[in-house]
Amino acid sequence: MKYSSKTLEKAVEAMSALPSIGQKSALRLILHLADNKGEKKQRLIDSLIALKDQLKVCKNCHNYSDTDVCDICLDPVRNKKLICVVDSVKDVMAIENTQQFSGVYHILGGVISPLEGVGPEDLNIDTLVSRINQEDVDELIMAISPSIEGDTTIYYISKLIQDKVKITTIARGVSFGGELEYADELTLGRSIHSRTNYNKEMSL
Amino acid sequence: MKYSSKTLEKAVEAMSALPSIGQKSALRLILHLADNKGEKKQRLIDSLIALKDQLKVCKNCHNYSDTDVCDICLDPVRNKKLICVVDSVKDVMAIENTQQFSGVYHILGGVISPLEGVGPEDLNIDTLVSRINQEDVDELIMAISPSIEGDTTIYYISKLIQDKVKITTIARGVSFGGELEYADELTLGRSIHSRTNYNKEMSL
Repeated sequence: MKYSSKTLEKAVEAMSALPSIGQKSALRLILHLADNKGEKKQRLIDSLIALKDQLKVCKNCHNYSDTDVCDICLDPVRNKKLICVVDSVKDVMAIENTQQFSGVYHILGGVISPLEGVGPEDLNIDTLVSRINQEDVDELIMAISPSIEGDTTIYYISKLIQDKVKITTIARGVSFGGELEYADELTLGRSIHSRTNYNKEMSL
Repeated sequence: MKYSSKTLEKAVEAMSALPSIGQKSALRLILHLADNKGEKKQRLIDSLIALKDQLKVCKNCHNYSDTDVCDICLDPVRNKKLICVVDSVKDVMAIENTQQFSGVYHILGGVISPLEGVGPEDLNIDTLVSRINQEDVDELIMAISPSIEGDTTIYYISKLIQDKVKITTIARGVSFGGELEYADELTLGRSIHSRTNYNKEMSL
């Protein structure tokens, strides 16, 4: 692609460095911004500068926050004895949207993946251990996406923590509205293996 | 969606104001930027500031440029007597990529569309007329997308300019590699109506 301006070309380049934004999409976005006579450009610039300078990471749970400790960790209503361990910030949002969890979180920042060179020391596992040692924690809910790497991470953490706290994982099985015949073998196999007592489930 | 940080929320909002970027895509992009430890954020910010402050519009043809007059208008090799009239900057890029045109451009910045409230006074038609009056122009090539609005615009300009210069339009017909049976009636009808002499076309 030939650009009539270096400024335009550089902006397209910077925009196309974002995931799933190709050269053509980036050009469309940048031309939209260049054509825009309103405040769109300025608003995007300001918000990105704020993102760079003001966005903090909660020193407790590693969630993004405007303060040193995030709103969830500071919320007096939330049960601090129940920690939900997740891979990323997106998972916290997904769980918060369900409005079914009233404990606090701990974000690992990834899962153990030897193939991608991610070891336990690259994740926020040490801070999780010190939280368990210092705070009065009853239960860790492992809400990690089901995969070999996720299971490895759960196993690693469970070995590290031993019997200090109860460890649970979120239920894995056929999703609501899903058709049995289309569920993959592993999921279906697991859902039979970890079947729940009908009356017990009803009483939850 | 619940955000853990106002800074994050504002950045997602500003990003989702761009065309074809929804809330979820914006969140993915912003989290990617927030997670990025390198220079990606800074590069995007710098290029957007440059876009806002440094990007100019060529006072001759209205193309985006780094200088008051764009490279195409300044190029001594290009034929200044041949002006290709287009709707937008994107069309200039598309034509430049064909490497089949050695004249100069004039960007209208839209087409006449009463339904969308775009009249001739909103477009760069007055500057086109003054170019024709002041410069020595032989031919205007109307490279406007075929549509009712496009045809109206071409008609309006042709009435305004009268016989001062020759006006041509880009050929309209079945596209290369296209199947006759799938071409729409209007295109196929027009392509028969404006059939070209085989030997003449060959000699181009």
